[in-house]
Amino acid sequence: MSSAPDRPLAGVRIVEISSFVAVPLAGMTLAGLGADVVRIDPVGGAADYHRWPLTADGVSIYWAGLNKGKRSMTVDLREDAGQRLVQQLIAAAGVFITNAAGRPWLSHPELAAQRPDLIHLEVTGRADGTTAVDYTVNAATGFPLVTGPAGADGPVNHVLPAWDVSCGLYAVIAVLAALRRRDTTGQGSAIRLPLDDVALATAANLGFLTEALVTGVRRPRLGNAIYGQYGQDFTSSDGVEFMVVALTPRHFRDLTEVTGTTAAVDAAAEAIGADFTDEGQRYRHRDLLTGLFAPWFAGHTAEQISAALARSSVLWSRYESFTDVAESPRVQGNPLFTLIDQPGVGSYPAPGLPMTVDGTHLASAPAPDLGQDNAAVPAEWLDR
Amino acid sequence: MSSAPDRPLAGVRIVEISSFVAVPLAGMTLAGLGADVVRIDPVGGAADYHRWPLTADGVSIYWAGLNKGKRSMTVDLREDAGQRLVQQLIAAAGVFITNAAGRPWLSHPELAAQRPDLIHLEVTGRADGTTAVDYTVNAATGFPLVTGPAGADGPVNHVLPAWDVSCGLYAVIAVLAALRRRDTTGQGSAIRLPLDDVALATAANLGFLTEALVTGVRRPRLGNAIYGQYGQDFTSSDGVEFMVVALTPRHFRDLTEVTGTTAAVDAAAEAIGADFTDEGQRYRHRDLLTGLFAPWFAGHTAEQISAALARSSVLWSRYESFTDVAESPRVQGNPLFTLIDQPGVGSYPAPGLPMTVDGTHLASAPAPDLGQDNAAVPAEWLDR
Repeated sequence: MSSAPDRPLAGVRIVEISSFVAVPLAGMTLAGLGADVVRIDPVGGAADYHRWPLTADGVSIYWAGLNKGKRSMTVDLREDAGQRLVQQLIAAAGVFITNAAGRPWLSHPELAAQRPDLIHLEVTGRADGTTAVDYTVNAATGFPLVTGPAGADGPVNHVLPAWDVSCGLYAVIAVLAALRRRDTTGQGSAIRLPLDDVALATAANLGFLTEALVTGVRRPRLGNAIYGQYGQDFTSSDGVEFMVVALTPRHFRDLTEVTGTTAAVDAAAEAIGADFTDEGQRYRHRDLLTGLFAPWFAGHTAEQISAALARSSVLWSRYESFTDVAESPRVQGNPLFTLIDQPGVGSYPAPGLPMTVDGTHLASAPAPDLGQDNAAVPAEWLDR
Repeated sequence: MSSAPDRPLAGVRIVEISSFVAVPLAGMTLAGLGADVVRIDPVGGAADYHRWPLTADGVSIYWAGLNKGKRSMTVDLREDAGQRLVQQLIAAAGVFITNAAGRPWLSHPELAAQRPDLIHLEVTGRADGTTAVDYTVNAATGFPLVTGPAGADGPVNHVLPAWDVSCGLYAVIAVLAALRRRDTTGQGSAIRLPLDDVALATAANLGFLTEALVTGVRRPRLGNAIYGQYGQDFTSSDGVEFMVVALTPRHFRDLTEVTGTTAAVDAAAEAIGADFTDEGQRYRHRDLLTGLFAPWFAGHTAEQISAALARSSVLWSRYESFTDVAESPRVQGNPLFTLIDQPGVGSYPAPGLPMTVDGTHLASAPAPDLGQDNAAVPAEWLDR
């Protein structure tokens, strides 16, 4: 679709040359905010055009999911004529986002010569110029060595590509800030955003790297416990798993009351000289506390546990599978999701942006067919 | 610090009343972009003021990490006079970000009566109004049931609070979009951003929920493999773990050449009728391929493996601990990090924003002392 006039980025035009997650997510988010985002791919599609998950017919659910609300052009990027067309479109748009590095005809000096106030964002692998993807960046963050059961051996990777997602959102932030700068000063921006630096900045902001540097503490593998807080998973009599968190003294007191362990917890505190109003002491003595709470969970059904926790201030959730979630009212009855009809995939509830503004969600539009706007975009943007 | 004049949000004033991760990260990011962000806490600090990790003296490394570059006020929020002061500061700032829900004197109608064009962002737990935190949201996403070794039982939580981080970045996006809208139309925005909806939108955008809905496929637990691609961890002869990824036919061909398995892989492909130029077939036959590659890793040292992979297009990384990362050139020699002197914590390299603009990082300033700006901010903003 082209710009929706009532959205904050109405009138902003963006060219995207991308693959995989970070830049496609950035472009989709900018499209959701109202920008006219044109994804340009080589003929036949980029390296992510057939990425899993696939439908039974081989259509990429992944690609449809990360390109909602964009327009699509295919161009022969190996030919001079194609390269010139893309340069003209970038100059006309004034904003270019990409993770396609190392092509001289897409270099910043080349593009800025044609559009001096260009906003040009490149997502790269590592700051030193080497390539990297979420899964290799994550290996070198420290997280896989503290994920998984206490005492386990070997790394445990995340399944959510959290660095790609964060990188895509930082890319949106960078473009929005650059638009503000250009509106104010007339200046363009050459922005580089290394995926690895997103991970490093995040790990440092959250204290993981700083703790290692400042205190020398080597944080252990904790299973499903939360570092420095009381949080633990429990299993019901009918085999349902729950995550339970008590961040404040009130949460914790409610947890002892729900589980009928208030007297036992107080007696244990006195016996070992602990003060469970302190979050650090709840963390240090977590195994003792879990030992006191677990029998109540093991002695009640999931339904009983859910009802009792719901009446308290305790933070809790059942563990759910993707299928459970997809079929739950959190998706099926949530105005965040609207039915879209995606050619090749079918009709399904797709999310808009996760925030409401004045009570309203910005809904998504389907992803384009590859190349569907080959004629329309040059006609509109280049007047041809 | 107050606004840096050369940053894109110079002149923007923001009040933050927050705790934990998402909103503090949002405020810190907006401060990094040049906004004057004043965090207002109850006397003695909010519920996150002593959060782990701590220094040996009990100072929160966590708090210092997520409040860099802000100013700080403490106000008795239980008293009428304190509440009125906060309302006046919010009206003067024109932007208010918070995760403190349920206080009538901070409700949108109350605040908008005093500042009609207010940008007011509230992060909440779930869209239905119930409370939730990263760890309970994550339990109900589906991810913990597919994380960890194939065949393992029970959920495996993430350690990175990925939903908090994503939520904080979406909050920044929402504020930047609302500033643009206000600049254009004069209108304020009442924004609600449920943490759970951030997780649901992300899981759907990436295809996890959509696959379950559209195909009914129940994705298995894969250990450290990557769904639909070839990616796997390997161990060297000296016990060092590597993550190795081949997204494209070129990556894959290079991996067979590095490991000296090209002929064996071709023979295996012919024997089973597979085409390893197809990413899905590399994924389906991953155990066979891993069996062919693993002996080369087991027969070489980490140094030999690193040297060989570095000469190829293969995507790879050693697994590293937080300590390894913190002491590596990726932190110690990276201009993303600058030394800051944080009272109570010491001097350490702290990250700025992960992007460079025209080759330059926006560096961070230290976190404030609690209440250090109690006099300065009202004097500047309220002319008193």
